[in-house]
Amino acid sequence: MSGLSAAVVQASGFLDLTGVLSNAILGGVVARNERFDPIGFATLAIISGLGGGLIRDTLLQHGTPIALTDPWYVITALIGATIAFLIPVEGRLWNAIFPWIDALALGTWAVAGATKTLSVGLGALPAVILGAVTAVGGGAVREVLLRQVPSVFGGNTLYATPALVASGLLVLLNRLGHPTVGLVVGTLGGAGFMLLSRWRQW
Amino acid sequence: MSGLSAAVVQASGFLDLTGVLSNAILGGVVARNERFDPIGFATLAIISGLGGGLIRDTLLQHGTPIALTDPWYVITALIGATIAFLIPVEGRLWNAIFPWIDALALGTWAVAGATKTLSVGLGALPAVILGAVTAVGGGAVREVLLRQVPSVFGGNTLYATPALVASGLLVLLNRLGHPTVGLVVGTLGGAGFMLLSRWRQW
Amino acid sequence: MSGLSAAVVQASGFLDLTGVLSNAILGGVVARNERFDPIGFATLAIISGLGGGLIRDTLLQHGTPIALTDPWYVITALIGATIAFLIPVEGRLWNAIFPWIDALALGTWAVAGATKTLSVGLGALPAVILGAVTAVGGGAVREVLLRQVPSVFGGNTLYATPALVASGLLVLLNRLGHPTVGLVVGTLGGAGFMLLSRWRQW
Repeated sequence: MSGLSAAVVQASGFLDLTGVLSNAILGGVVARNERFDPIGFATLAIISGLGGGLIRDTLLQHGTPIALTDPWYVITALIGATIAFLIPVEGRLWNAIFPWIDALALGTWAVAGATKTLSVGLGALPAVILGAVTAVGGGAVREVLLRQVPSVFGGNTLYATPALVASGLLVLLNRLGHPTVGLVVGTLGGAGFMLLSRWRQW
Repeated sequence: MSGLSAAVVQASGFLDLTGVLSNAILGGVVARNERFDPIGFATLAIISGLGGGLIRDTLLQHGTPIALTDPWYVITALIGATIAFLIPVEGRLWNAIFPWIDALALGTWAVAGATKTLSVGLGALPAVILGAVTAVGGGAVREVLLRQVPSVFGGNTLYATPALVASGLLVLLNRLGHPTVGLVVGTLGGAGFMLLSRWRQW
Repeated sequence: MSGLSAAVVQASGFLDLTGVLSNAILGGVVARNERFDPIGFATLAIISGLGGGLIRDTLLQHGTPIALTDPWYVITALIGATIAFLIPVEGRLWNAIFPWIDALALGTWAVAGATKTLSVGLGALPAVILGAVTAVGGGAVREVLLRQVPSVFGGNTLYATPALVASGLLVLLNRLGHPTVGLVVGTLGGAGFMLLSRWRQW
């Protein structure tokens, strides 16, 4: 993907880690609700924070997944687990900020996943799909492990559609020659779509 | 696998896509029964149509899975989802042709998976197993996501045994020096065994 | 991992196969309890015996998983399935030896998985995690397929903690320059911790 500058790739890496932290915290919150022990917190945080990226990198088959080669990924996931374990993230404040974290994490991951897929030379359709897989994959694996039907199939909160919006916008703007604009518009577009769908209760 | 001519590899690719279409339609039918939205149709069609091949190619680790590099795989799966979404595939006609589609898809996929495993230089035992994984993998993942115990473990319809018959026949005839005969006999043998087991209610 | 001699790698391979056999038998025992047919026995034995290693090797992305390239892995898993199918492994004798097999298999696998992760050049944290994934991965996949919440999240028997103890000890002693000591201490430390936790009903 010649249109991607080094700065954009670096920004994508930072977005990736931000998504790891927020999703690891979300995984830890689920672990608290399930009354898991510390190992359960760490496991759910790692699955939630690294699962989508591990699935993407395993499918891309361009070397060992970055979640294993770059130590900051596991460390960030464990920091998220520790935060969720130490701080009872619930109540009015949590309910007020949770949807915003959730939406931003979804947008950043979909965009990061689509960017990485394009960067190894795959086409638009796999980029859109693997962007969405990056965004919803970790959560879906967590739900399967906890014996829930993955919410990507529906339910009271939309996940898959905003993720497809985010990765779709990124791929489109990439093809139009605006990769950096795509990162911003894709992330905010996906996050905005998700907040709107939650607010309007689609 | 020096015994495999280019024509056989090409035929195997065509069989692969035929299996994608029929299994994607089957995934869409399940999505209709579960009352999923269009994204759910597409997701189940992609999982059902591409899941087995993705698992096989990920395990083989010989480059990015063909389902991601060749755009026709995703397109074919989405065509299957669209067909199942637009046409209410049920009733007497569907019940009459469903077992035939199901059986042929199982046979073609088992044969395609075993062929690909042999072509990257692996032995007979992995080829038989990965042929069966190709054939039943997508359906098994779909069942796990929908919280069903995968029917490969038993139930009212045999899946794993006919798949093993198909991939086993292919590997045997390959070893005897008849790869093209193996494609035909494996596919029809597996499909026939499955139709017979359904008819006799094994 | 320059500190690892050829003898240690070879010993690690032998431990790996011992774990395959014992876990395949455990998978077959579960298949008997679920009243599966022979294909179900073989499938559960392969998943239980090879699942953890397949996940590890797929994530490491250093070539086709050894469970597929070395025929002894599948053969050993099928021998385990046959033993469990032919011999009714239950009753007082089984209840007496089961915890010991279970604990030794867990320790050997965690140590083998961490060793392999270090040997491809990854760091301490991924080695500890992938060691534990090797040890508990196959059992977790088996539990998900049978619609149980994986016992790594808690329950009446500890699995994840002893596996982390085993892989942690191996990585620590490796870093201190004692890889061979690490293999023995890691295996026995993890197995001992698990037997202790079972005995004391932690």
